[in-house]
Amino acid sequence: MIPTEGVTRLVISCPDRPGIVAAVSRFLFEEGANVITLDQFSSDPFDGGTFFLRMEFTLPAGAPEGLPERFGLQIAEHWGMTWRMWSAERPKRIAVLTSRADHCLQELLWRWRRRELSGEIVLVASNHPDHRETVEGYGLPFRHVPVTKEGGKPESEGRLLELLRGKCDVVVLARYMQIVSGEFLERLAVPVINIHHSFLPAFVGAEPYRQAKERGVKLIGATAHYVTAELDAGPIIEQDVIRVGHDHDIPTLTRLGSDIERTVLARAVRWHCEDRVLRLGNQTVVF
Amino acid sequence: MIPTEGVTRLVISCPDRPGIVAAVSRFLFEEGANVITLDQFSSDPFDGGTFFLRMEFTLPAGAPEGLPERFGLQIAEHWGMTWRMWSAERPKRIAVLTSRADHCLQELLWRWRRRELSGEIVLVASNHPDHRETVEGYGLPFRHVPVTKEGGKPESEGRLLELLRGKCDVVVLARYMQIVSGEFLERLAVPVINIHHSFLPAFVGAEPYRQAKERGVKLIGATAHYVTAELDAGPIIEQDVIRVGHDHDIPTLTRLGSDIERTVLARAVRWHCEDRVLRLGNQTVVF
Amino acid sequence: MIPTEGVTRLVISCPDRPGIVAAVSRFLFEEGANVITLDQFSSDPFDGGTFFLRMEFTLPAGAPEGLPERFGLQIAEHWGMTWRMWSAERPKRIAVLTSRADHCLQELLWRWRRRELSGEIVLVASNHPDHRETVEGYGLPFRHVPVTKEGGKPESEGRLLELLRGKCDVVVLARYMQIVSGEFLERLAVPVINIHHSFLPAFVGAEPYRQAKERGVKLIGATAHYVTAELDAGPIIEQDVIRVGHDHDIPTLTRLGSDIERTVLARAVRWHCEDRVLRLGNQTVVF
Amino acid sequence: MIPTEGVTRLVISCPDRPGIVAAVSRFLFEEGANVITLDQFSSDPFDGGTFFLRMEFTLPAGAPEGLPERFGLQIAEHWGMTWRMWSAERPKRIAVLTSRADHCLQELLWRWRRRELSGEIVLVASNHPDHRETVEGYGLPFRHVPVTKEGGKPESEGRLLELLRGKCDVVVLARYMQIVSGEFLERLAVPVINIHHSFLPAFVGAEPYRQAKERGVKLIGATAHYVTAELDAGPIIEQDVIRVGHDHDIPTLTRLGSDIERTVLARAVRWHCEDRVLRLGNQTVVF
Repeated sequence: MIPTEGVTRLVISCPDRPGIVAAVSRFLFEEGANVITLDQFSSDPFDGGTFFLRMEFTLPAGAPEGLPERFGLQIAEHWGMTWRMWSAERPKRIAVLTSRADHCLQELLWRWRRRELSGEIVLVASNHPDHRETVEGYGLPFRHVPVTKEGGKPESEGRLLELLRGKCDVVVLARYMQIVSGEFLERLAVPVINIHHSFLPAFVGAEPYRQAKERGVKLIGATAHYVTAELDAGPIIEQDVIRVGHDHDIPTLTRLGSDIERTVLARAVRWHCEDRVLRLGNQTVVF
Repeated sequence: MIPTEGVTRLVISCPDRPGIVAAVSRFLFEEGANVITLDQFSSDPFDGGTFFLRMEFTLPAGAPEGLPERFGLQIAEHWGMTWRMWSAERPKRIAVLTSRADHCLQELLWRWRRRELSGEIVLVASNHPDHRETVEGYGLPFRHVPVTKEGGKPESEGRLLELLRGKCDVVVLARYMQIVSGEFLERLAVPVINIHHSFLPAFVGAEPYRQAKERGVKLIGATAHYVTAELDAGPIIEQDVIRVGHDHDIPTLTRLGSDIERTVLARAVRWHCEDRVLRLGNQTVVF
Repeated sequence: MIPTEGVTRLVISCPDRPGIVAAVSRFLFEEGANVITLDQFSSDPFDGGTFFLRMEFTLPAGAPEGLPERFGLQIAEHWGMTWRMWSAERPKRIAVLTSRADHCLQELLWRWRRRELSGEIVLVASNHPDHRETVEGYGLPFRHVPVTKEGGKPESEGRLLELLRGKCDVVVLARYMQIVSGEFLERLAVPVINIHHSFLPAFVGAEPYRQAKERGVKLIGATAHYVTAELDAGPIIEQDVIRVGHDHDIPTLTRLGSDIERTVLARAVRWHCEDRVLRLGNQTVVF
Repeated sequence: MIPTEGVTRLVISCPDRPGIVAAVSRFLFEEGANVITLDQFSSDPFDGGTFFLRMEFTLPAGAPEGLPERFGLQIAEHWGMTWRMWSAERPKRIAVLTSRADHCLQELLWRWRRRELSGEIVLVASNHPDHRETVEGYGLPFRHVPVTKEGGKPESEGRLLELLRGKCDVVVLARYMQIVSGEFLERLAVPVINIHHSFLPAFVGAEPYRQAKERGVKLIGATAHYVTAELDAGPIIEQDVIRVGHDHDIPTLTRLGSDIERTVLARAVRWHCEDRVLRLGNQTVVF
């Protein structure tokens, strides 16, 4: 549990070449930074892979302003880096979309209040009015954005975009049972994390616990992933499983699975908010 | 670790109705049997499901011959039971088919020698000659049954049928990299257990570790299942998984996965040999 | 997820002898009962062990009253059984004792509302006033029973006994940080379940996460057990672990461990309420 | 699975100060090295902790000799580093001590032949003659070093020291059922890895599976640790557990546990041979 006071995070990906770590760490040393953690990974260290780096560092009192600008100019441009620098004191703003099932929502709210999410929930919206009281009981705003017969999904997505655009850094689908459109994702322009109640890529789509029962699997799982335009096919952040048996019917699978769903989603949200998750094509690097 | 001396196993499935347990246990009591273990399951206890039962019992010294006949006549017929009675002293005869990769074969041989399989390996056959020395070192017969250009799979399956028919009670595909035909399965007429190196139904078919890497999953698995004519789609006996990360390449996934493959396969073979696995459509009941 | 309507549970332990299953199942068959599940275990099936049985069954509409009396007379006495019969429609009444940490309390409250505990929480008491609002928000009574300087533990235990005796079927210590006396347990006369935040018997007593850090273990755990007069030494109901590393400090161990604590405790409470847990000396049989 | 050709490993621990990563990575960059992996950890990044680093790098063809000397002079001395540099092409030499139980020995031999240990077994010694044939079948020398009535442990340890001193880089106790003396460890002067068949610190000493059964735990485990003069108290390298139940007797616990023992020991040996394990007091840092 790293204190966040005065901690800055730097996340980098770029073409792998010798000298990146030396250049970055020398730059930070000369700025007076004290490196707390450093994680590094090369997708193919022997043949033109991609280099990933995550650092946490502190700066001395009275350090000059403009560190990101200097980093961009002196380091990032030279090495062709995709990068961001983020003050750990400024928590990510999280918006949650949900539907009727409340276990993932409850888990996020509860961990948020315990300060275990490493981010701030700023809004909960749902296509059902059910959880207004719960959410407002936590002192958080709740918006009911139904999918109406007339307006359909375009209207609903339009209203959500008004609520969300520019007001959050990540959107979490906490068992939000609507498929979001590619256009919505594009216009939203922040990462969207979904929890799917199966061990993807097994049991894509509807009723994964029913599918699991029918296939007779001995473990059921849950998958947190970034949402892309293709259903249940985005980069996986985290997965976990639980053992089941022939004597578990579909309601029991649903109950046991919901425990896995909430822990997997909570881990994924936390790791995302701590800038631990980097994308590598349709995969993720999780530091 | 139940001693097997004098132990008889009874395995039953039949339409569920009140009174089955009472009838079976009363019959055995009157025969002087001492019940050691009893496992029971109903696929739908409230509405016309299937009833499954597994019992282990001992008989007193000097018990009269002909117990199976009496059970068939007095009990099984009345309740419409599919059943078998098997002396735990008579171990199942196991034939192993394998190819180049030896980790599953080694595990089975090693556990067999430690008496951990609850069955006797009677033969190892392979489409490659590589493991002759290893197998014969265990004092077991090895047969090389290549798939030749001329004869192809039909010839190879014909030779295997000659080796196997009537000489084994179960066939184990220990990373046997050939797809067996429906006709082969039918003529073989004993159960065939396969180990697939993925968490089925994810990554059916060839190169599952490559598929897993490309999908970016965070857990890889292995699945032991009964073989049916449809590839990798038979009833699952056992599965397990191991956690992997972005820094694991395909050879590492293969190495880590092979540890799961061998434990999952060994468990499935042991459970099968102990008559713990019953089929329920395309699922299994594992007592 | 077995429906509980009309379901009766029978739990038995007695000296093992041939014929118990036959006698019990025949008795129930003649009463018109339909057995739903049957679990059986003998602590030493070959030499004078103890026999354990758990059954769930339904009775036909209009079945005559007095089944427990008839069972006691015709069966239990003859076989020397310790037994109880419990209508699954009558949920166990659960009292929860807690202190400052709220994660186990929250988990129980939340699962109770989702009907996942298989029991009814009837009261929450704490030696701190902190969680009154939370508990009352669930519509449940909250009692603050401080341990005062003057009265000390005897006074506090006296007040708790007034609140609890005869009003609950099980008491759950949800991170209740007081050691309860043997006299309290005796006068309470219902089972008490505690959650200890280590993998017992490792790290008995105070600050188990600090102990775990100092010993440098690679897994931390939690243990739900029945409380006896000896600290952290009662029969274990359930345990689980989570992997940790050198980079986890004590606050992180505490956070990760709290997730294991709440799932382990919730499982133990549910299993207890479903009459799945039987005692065998200082061990448990969990059906 | 990193290729080892031309790969050098550098392992460092020293008092934590700003600038270590910068100094080391700049030094290596100027030597023309290409960093493949870098792992870093500070035991207390905010207050005078210990800094740990592990790097793997390659050097260009024709790089000048004497890199370790230059590193020692220019870097290590200045920062007060405990360090070593090791060519990954030169595998660690492993000596194995064993007794009657063969499962851990077999696992090591088998993985050694598959090149999964990242080290070379150079010798197997045992206080029993049982496994000579097995070991020699792998083409490895076997030495029988009994503990005789006359000579006792001192004589036996003396003969082992003759066999081992200077001839191996690590000694693995693969269920070697003798307690080794502090003097032996001191004179041996290489790390000794032991596998203990419990989840330490639970069940120190003899017959841990019996202890586990008597305590009624729901998980059993195994622990690989460096051996110190105090029994079962050395720094833990790796642990794992497996779920058990009331129906598992001691022989079954022993069988299930042996599967955990061999995987845990094999992981620990591999990690040690890859220079992934650093000591921090009585704990380990495992990169």
